[in-house]
Amino acid sequence: VLSRVFDKFVQEIPAEVPYIFFDSFIPEANYLAYIGQDSFQSGLLSGKLMHLLVPAGSSVAVIKVLPEDYHIEERVSGFLTYFQPEPSIAVHVYEMHGNIENKGCEALLHKIITEQPNLRGIFITNASTHKIAEAVKELNWPPQKRIRLIGYDVIDNNIRLLKQGVIDFLISQQSERQGYEGVTNLYRHVVLNEPVEKKIIMQLDIVTQENIDYYRS
Amino acid sequence: VLSRVFDKFVQEIPAEVPYIFFDSFIPEANYLAYIGQDSFQSGLLSGKLMHLLVPAGSSVAVIKVLPEDYHIEERVSGFLTYFQPEPSIAVHVYEMHGNIENKGCEALLHKIITEQPNLRGIFITNASTHKIAEAVKELNWPPQKRIRLIGYDVIDNNIRLLKQGVIDFLISQQSERQGYEGVTNLYRHVVLNEPVEKKIIMQLDIVTQENIDYYRS
Repeated sequence: VLSRVFDKFVQEIPAEVPYIFFDSFIPEANYLAYIGQDSFQSGLLSGKLMHLLVPAGSSVAVIKVLPEDYHIEERVSGFLTYFQPEPSIAVHVYEMHGNIENKGCEALLHKIITEQPNLRGIFITNASTHKIAEAVKELNWPPQKRIRLIGYDVIDNNIRLLKQGVIDFLISQQSERQGYEGVTNLYRHVVLNEPVEKKIIMQLDIVTQENIDYYRS
Repeated sequence: VLSRVFDKFVQEIPAEVPYIFFDSFIPEANYLAYIGQDSFQSGLLSGKLMHLLVPAGSSVAVIKVLPEDYHIEERVSGFLTYFQPEPSIAVHVYEMHGNIENKGCEALLHKIITEQPNLRGIFITNASTHKIAEAVKELNWPPQKRIRLIGYDVIDNNIRLLKQGVIDFLISQQSERQGYEGVTNLYRHVVLNEPVEKKIIMQLDIVTQENIDYYRS
């Protein structure tokens, strides 16, 4: 995870040292390659799916997970852009620190549902999805008030809550393939001295209860 | 594509000749491996997505593409199973021959919309999706009567109509990977004499307007 405080660190990497960004990148940096998603597009995709999940007239919350990070900001921005021409759905952005504890998640959720009585969906912008999902599950609301959840990353805690039907969709980043592409491309550059693609964009995989069992990241 | 008429052919393959089924398989046959989707599960997945696309009270048509084939039947069966506990959506099955021409597609669509005045979605069970999509596009109906389409396979004609917003979702079978797995496993069995997995189940990829550009089958 890169944030603005790391900009300086990246600027101090000597020009002859090749490095690759995963998931996040700093646009003006002198990187060899960026391997990751098109984060803005993944926000658009999440917006489309959320639009299918919630009824007209409802509110949707976006949880921007801190520390501030380029790819999180792009995801938020893509999601908001999707809903711009949809006045029937009100979207509100909240912030949450990535290392928040259970109690803190519950408090944040209570704040959101108090401020947005028509809340029917939450978009969580990184792998912390399960933390909010646990808090939503605790509410134990009836199906007609159900809060739909879209988040990121196929990790055990998220898979469990997806299978339980608490999380509706996970967007996956193909993390294993990213690692493979990273090592391969550094090898190509350093050992073989071959040209390397500047941007290697991963698939945007949509994972649900129905296809999780056959999903290979 | 396998159909019941091929059962006899498969039965006559000598026991010492290894063969692999792709996409379809005959349950009682003596095959080395089956490589493909879990077709029933892909029907369930399509049902879930269709449920998100159409409003309560609408009708949905399933187009069962002929000739009769195990994997097509399983897809239909998964889709119908998804909607069994959903009395608010009426599902009707129609048949269409895979090599139907444009005129025939238009006639079938007109028959469906005449018989189902609340039609809001069509699930097409194979790569012929674009044929029905072209006929739906021709109708040029206003957005509020829009017929949502879910189909199979990332082929050029389907991609074009997905990008135009006529097709909503394509379920993809990872055909390139299937071919790779097929050759690898025959090699393992015949040359290396290594054990081979009886069932190699492919991912169920969900492809939309938003993620098609980064999709690699």
